[in-house]
Amino acid sequence: MAQLYAMVNCFQYPRMSIRRTLSSPLDSRHRIQLNPGEQTMETSVSNLYAMNGGEGPTSYAQNSSYQRGVVDVAKPIIEEEISMKLDVKQLLLTNTKSFRIADFGCSTGHNSFPAMQIITEAVEKKFQTEGLNSQIPDFQVFFNDQVMNDFNTLFLSLPPQRSYHAAGVPGPFHGRLFPNASLDFAYCSCALNWLSEVPKAVADHNSPAWNNGKVHYTEARQEVFEAYSNHYVNDIGAFLNARAQELVQGGLMALLVPAVPAFKNSGTSYTTPTEMDLIGSCLVDMAKKGRFGEEKVDSFNFPLYFTIPDELKTIIGRSDSFNIERMEILNNPGKRTLRSVNARATYLRAVFEGLLINHFGSEIMDELFELYTKKLAASPHFLDPDNEKSIIIFVLLKRKVE
Amino acid sequence: MAQLYAMVNCFQYPRMSIRRTLSSPLDSRHRIQLNPGEQTMETSVSNLYAMNGGEGPTSYAQNSSYQRGVVDVAKPIIEEEISMKLDVKQLLLTNTKSFRIADFGCSTGHNSFPAMQIITEAVEKKFQTEGLNSQIPDFQVFFNDQVMNDFNTLFLSLPPQRSYHAAGVPGPFHGRLFPNASLDFAYCSCALNWLSEVPKAVADHNSPAWNNGKVHYTEARQEVFEAYSNHYVNDIGAFLNARAQELVQGGLMALLVPAVPAFKNSGTSYTTPTEMDLIGSCLVDMAKKGRFGEEKVDSFNFPLYFTIPDELKTIIGRSDSFNIERMEILNNPGKRTLRSVNARATYLRAVFEGLLINHFGSEIMDELFELYTKKLAASPHFLDPDNEKSIIIFVLLKRKVE
Repeated sequence: MAQLYAMVNCFQYPRMSIRRTLSSPLDSRHRIQLNPGEQTMETSVSNLYAMNGGEGPTSYAQNSSYQRGVVDVAKPIIEEEISMKLDVKQLLLTNTKSFRIADFGCSTGHNSFPAMQIITEAVEKKFQTEGLNSQIPDFQVFFNDQVMNDFNTLFLSLPPQRSYHAAGVPGPFHGRLFPNASLDFAYCSCALNWLSEVPKAVADHNSPAWNNGKVHYTEARQEVFEAYSNHYVNDIGAFLNARAQELVQGGLMALLVPAVPAFKNSGTSYTTPTEMDLIGSCLVDMAKKGRFGEEKVDSFNFPLYFTIPDELKTIIGRSDSFNIERMEILNNPGKRTLRSVNARATYLRAVFEGLLINHFGSEIMDELFELYTKKLAASPHFLDPDNEKSIIIFVLLKRKVE
Repeated sequence: MAQLYAMVNCFQYPRMSIRRTLSSPLDSRHRIQLNPGEQTMETSVSNLYAMNGGEGPTSYAQNSSYQRGVVDVAKPIIEEEISMKLDVKQLLLTNTKSFRIADFGCSTGHNSFPAMQIITEAVEKKFQTEGLNSQIPDFQVFFNDQVMNDFNTLFLSLPPQRSYHAAGVPGPFHGRLFPNASLDFAYCSCALNWLSEVPKAVADHNSPAWNNGKVHYTEARQEVFEAYSNHYVNDIGAFLNARAQELVQGGLMALLVPAVPAFKNSGTSYTTPTEMDLIGSCLVDMAKKGRFGEEKVDSFNFPLYFTIPDELKTIIGRSDSFNIERMEILNNPGKRTLRSVNARATYLRAVFEGLLINHFGSEIMDELFELYTKKLAASPHFLDPDNEKSIIIFVLLKRKVE
C-alpha cells in the first residue's frame, strides 16, 4: 500500500523565478499581461510558476540531486542508443552543418548540462566511428522551460568549456516551440509528470470530479483520477505532436518519464499517500485554523500525474510519427534519498513554493513548511526507505522518415 | 566645437541585470566563476555589466525611446533592401524550412521586437511577391546580448502575437555564438559603439596612452584616441569574421552603427566634450572630496567608441566575406531629446550604472547621479539641442556566395 512516498522527488519542471523577476506577487491583471503567446490566455496562467530560481538554499539548483541521479543511470543507455540508432548519413542528407539538440524542461540547467554533454559526446563519437571525422557538426543546444523559468541563472551557469552554442527557449513544451524540422535530437527528463494545467473538473464544485478537501488524485475518488489521467493522455499527445513537427526525419528523442509501477486501488482511492497529500493535509489544518477559507484548498490541486509503463506505451503507440526504439524501466534511480527531514522539506519547498504562492500567497509559506516538516518527522510511512517505489521510464523514439 | 553632447543617447548594449540576478555585488572571485565560456577569463570580466534590467523607473526598458527612434527611421530602408536584395531562391536551395534571424545586442527587447517584426514581415512579403506563398518559412528569432543581460525580462516581454519562434542567446557578439551557416539574417542596432573591453593601454600608467584624470578618449591625447580606435578596428573585424561564419551564403546583415560625422581635433583633444566627460568630471570631483582615490578614476574608462563613415567603410572593406549593398547616414534620428534634465540623468543612469557599480561600488551611485544632474542643469553646452550632431550609419551587407 505504502509505496509512492518518494515519487515526488522527480520534479524538474516547471521552475520558479517569479519572486525575483517581479517586484510584487502576481495579481490576476499581471498574469494576463504575461501571456507567453504560444498558449491561450487561460492556459498560460497555469504556467506562471516554476522551480525556485537562483542559487540560494531553497533554490532548485541546490536541491535536485535526485534528478541528477536519473541522468547518471540513463547515461550508458543514451550512449548506446545514439551509437546504434543515430543515422548520421540521413542527417548529412539534410544538408545542414549543425546538430541541434533541445532539452525540454531544463530548469536552471544544473542537471541539463551533464545530459547535454553525454549527448554531444556520443554524437561526436558516432561520427568518428563512421569515419566521418571531417564532418562532425557544430552543436547547438536549446534549453527550454516555462517563460517564468530563471533563464538568467541558467545562462550564468553554462559550463565554460562546453562544446556547443547555447540558446534559451521560453514557453510551454506542450505546444510548438521550434520551426518545422529544425531539431535533430530532443531530450526531456523528469518533466513529463507535470501537466499543462490542473484538470478543470477537479476544481469545479459542480463536477463529479470535484476534489474537495484534497490537493491531488492520490487517495481521491475514481472521477478525480480519471480527470487527471485523461488530461495526461491529451498532454503527452500534444507534446509528441509538437515534437513530431520540430524533429527532422530520423531524429531521435530520449524521454525520462517519472512514473509508478502500477495504479494501486486501496478501497476507494486510486493510489497511496504521497508527500503531496501531506502538504494537502497541512493546508487543510491551516484552513481549519482560519488562515484561509476551506474553499481555497478545494480549488487548489497539483498539476502532476505519474503514469505507468503500459499507459505511456499506449499513448505513444497512437502517434503516427514515431517508432519506439527502446523502452524500459530505470528502477529506483532515486535511492539517493535526502538525509534529513529538514533537507527533504527544503527540497519540496524548492519545487512547490512557486505554485503554492500563486494560489495561497507568500505570507503562509513559512508556517506551511514548518507544519510540513513536523508532519514528515512524525510519519513512519514517509520516512521508511522501503516505501520508495517510484520508477523512471526510459523511452527512445525515432522520428519516422516519410 | 561643441557637437557631440547627445551621442551617448544611442546605447543599447550591453545590458545590466547583475543586481537582480545576484544577491550581492560582484566580487573578483564571483566574476571569475561567471566566465561565459566564449572569451578568455580576463575579457569576460569586462562583459559583466549590461543595461539596467527589469521594467522599473531606472530600467533601460523605460529609458530607450531614442533607440526606438532609430528603428523607426531605418524601417523603410530595411523593407526596401529586403525587397530588393533578399535572394529567396538561393535560400530555398539550402533546403532548410526555416528563416533564422539574430539580433546582436537586443537588451530586454523593447526596441528589438518592432525591428524583428519589420524584418519578418518584409521577408514574408518578398516570398509572396516572388509567387512563393506556399514556401514561406517558419521564422526563428535569436535575441543575443551579454550573459549578464536580463533575459528573464526579455522573455516575459515577448509580444504575444509574434509570428516567430523565439530564443535567447547569451554571450559577447565579438566572438562566435552560432553554428556555421545557421543564420539567414543578422541585425545589430545601437550596439557596435560598445567595445569588447576597455583598451588595456589607457588604464596602464606605464603606457603613453594612459588616460589619467579622464574616463574616455574625448578631450584626451592622441595616444588615447588611437588606443580606442585600434581596439574598435579589431572588434569590428572580429564581429564581421564571426558573422561571416554564422551567416548562410547570400545572407543579409543590417547594421545601425552609432557614429559621428568627423573626428574633430580642437587643440590637443581629439573630440569635443560628451556626457561621458561630464560623468568623468563628477568622478574627479568626488575623488577630490575623498570618496575614493584618484587612481580609481584613472583606472576607469568607458568601453565606447564612435566611428566615422570612412573609417567604418575601410574596416568592412577588409572583410573578404561581405559585399556592401548599401551604406548611408541616418541623420540625427535622435532628435527626440529627453524633456527634462532629470529624465536625461535617469537615462544615462539606466545605461551606465552597471558599469560604474562594477568599478566604484553601488554606494556612490546616488551621489554621483545627483552631482551629474546638477552639472547637466548648469551646462549650456549640453542643454543646447543644436549641439546634437550624432549620426547613425546604416549598412546593409550581403554574405558572399563562395
